[in-house]
Amino acid sequence: MANGEFGFIENIKTIFGTTEDIVGIGDDCAVIPMGENDLLVTTDMLIEGVHFLRSDATPEQVGYKSVAVNLSDIAAMGGRPIGTFLSIALPKDAQGEWAERFMEGFAEISRHYGVPLLGGDTTSSLRDVAVNVAVVGTCPHGGAILRSGARVGDTIFVTGPLGDSGAGLKLLLERAERTPDEDFLVGRHYSPTPRLSEGLALAATGLVGAMMDISDGIASDLGHILRASGVGARVALDALLTSEQLERVCGRKGWSAGELAASAGEDYELLLTAPEEITQMVDFPLYPIGRITEGGAEIEWYKGGQRCEFTTLGFTHF
Amino acid sequence: MANGEFGFIENIKTIFGTTEDIVGIGDDCAVIPMGENDLLVTTDMLIEGVHFLRSDATPEQVGYKSVAVNLSDIAAMGGRPIGTFLSIALPKDAQGEWAERFMEGFAEISRHYGVPLLGGDTTSSLRDVAVNVAVVGTCPHGGAILRSGARVGDTIFVTGPLGDSGAGLKLLLERAERTPDEDFLVGRHYSPTPRLSEGLALAATGLVGAMMDISDGIASDLGHILRASGVGARVALDALLTSEQLERVCGRKGWSAGELAASAGEDYELLLTAPEEITQMVDFPLYPIGRITEGGAEIEWYKGGQRCEFTTLGFTHF
Repeated sequence: MANGEFGFIENIKTIFGTTEDIVGIGDDCAVIPMGENDLLVTTDMLIEGVHFLRSDATPEQVGYKSVAVNLSDIAAMGGRPIGTFLSIALPKDAQGEWAERFMEGFAEISRHYGVPLLGGDTTSSLRDVAVNVAVVGTCPHGGAILRSGARVGDTIFVTGPLGDSGAGLKLLLERAERTPDEDFLVGRHYSPTPRLSEGLALAATGLVGAMMDISDGIASDLGHILRASGVGARVALDALLTSEQLERVCGRKGWSAGELAASAGEDYELLLTAPEEITQMVDFPLYPIGRITEGGAEIEWYKGGQRCEFTTLGFTHF
Repeated sequence: MANGEFGFIENIKTIFGTTEDIVGIGDDCAVIPMGENDLLVTTDMLIEGVHFLRSDATPEQVGYKSVAVNLSDIAAMGGRPIGTFLSIALPKDAQGEWAERFMEGFAEISRHYGVPLLGGDTTSSLRDVAVNVAVVGTCPHGGAILRSGARVGDTIFVTGPLGDSGAGLKLLLERAERTPDEDFLVGRHYSPTPRLSEGLALAATGLVGAMMDISDGIASDLGHILRASGVGARVALDALLTSEQLERVCGRKGWSAGELAASAGEDYELLLTAPEEITQMVDFPLYPIGRITEGGAEIEWYKGGQRCEFTTLGFTHF
């Protein structure tokens, strides 16, 4: 579930009054009690010209990504997906081959994660493709990992390298010939990996405080956890893992890999807080990037052991 | 859940293989077992220029209708809505007042039926407004009324007058000054009544064979029930209830009220099959319009006791 751009969905509780035992509103998924299990629901919309260009993205990539970003929201709750619902509006020139290839990408990731398409709506549009995917999932009652559970002293972890997707987007916007490294980064932008098995395994440890997926960049996303949990954080920029491909491309382009890793979004790795020992309870790597502190929803950034500041100009030393 | 225009969502089972105990795919809602209860999910997309014009519909009407058509799908299963998820893409010129007024219409119907907005996604778009609403609901396990349960000998009922919405759309497209009767019909087009309490009461009788909501017109929608149930039907055109307002407007315009009632869509009344005695078990009127027969998914139309035929030219006597 994306964070609304216009703010009115954030005011759900104000507009609609109490929603009793339903939690997770404004989290990655809404969490609805259904007997022994809780139901998880998330939805994301992709609009042509805003989220993708038909001239750049293959239809398969758009289909793949429309599912991936939603599965990532289920992963971020420690849940298991049940099925997807696809609504798609197609202008005339996308109703033939484009639509079929979109469905191939959609079906490929659906089969890979064993998540069936259970329904939806198809319609025409005048000009732009519009895609909405809703995913329902489930977790044991009370077992969803919210953003609000971070505890002072917890370590902050991520599940993989960051910055690839952001660099991929920069490369897309350049519209130049690409090297294989650059193609790899663009691929990470269009085909992110939803961390479903990791999310389930992490939830099963019982040790995770807060968790979410990285869609807007750590600087912004960690802020959501801090505000929801009423805590602060210290983050070491040097600790952010970056891929070899990102390092090489940044070297050639003069970009800062660390800055992309900290502030560019759409990596869809999991960001979580837990005690150190969680690393011994899962069979995949967790990368520590900092620690939860008592502060007031602020992130203190460190680079080479020194405080630095994160501004629109990037990271600068105090 | 609308019936897809391009057919690829109909092929869900082919693309995605078995979905085990999940039923209702291609029905008004998907039906997913969740312990003692079944989960119902439906989703509908409204696109500017296709489903509404910003120059004709008030923002409140678009917001209201986006919820109404989905609640109608829950009603058609005999279910109870739990909550809604709104995805909305807004071009620059709709991000201020238009969006706020849209939310007022959305909130009005949500409050009226006690259905909270539980999440969603807001984004910008280049040119057209795109709205997707997903609704989750519930019913007792195995209690959802599908389209496939019609039995030979059942009476076919509708819950209210038909044709108003279709006439309202014709009036909208004329873009002329409107009489109060005409305004009423346009109102029925933009603000249909989801028959939620009726759907619940009908399901509770245990007598309903098949049920759906009338979105494409009886001629088309009854065909879905007949194909899903492997039965035929006889329908008396004279039995279709029409409103006084529709009769008066049709009289002035030279339109056929009966034809609009049979073939125009978006009335969102319930269409159901059940034994005659069901009328004594509910406290609202049910209008019998015909009977389920053994035939092969064909509708035999009658007018004044005579067989007639339904073609693109309307109803003609044999």
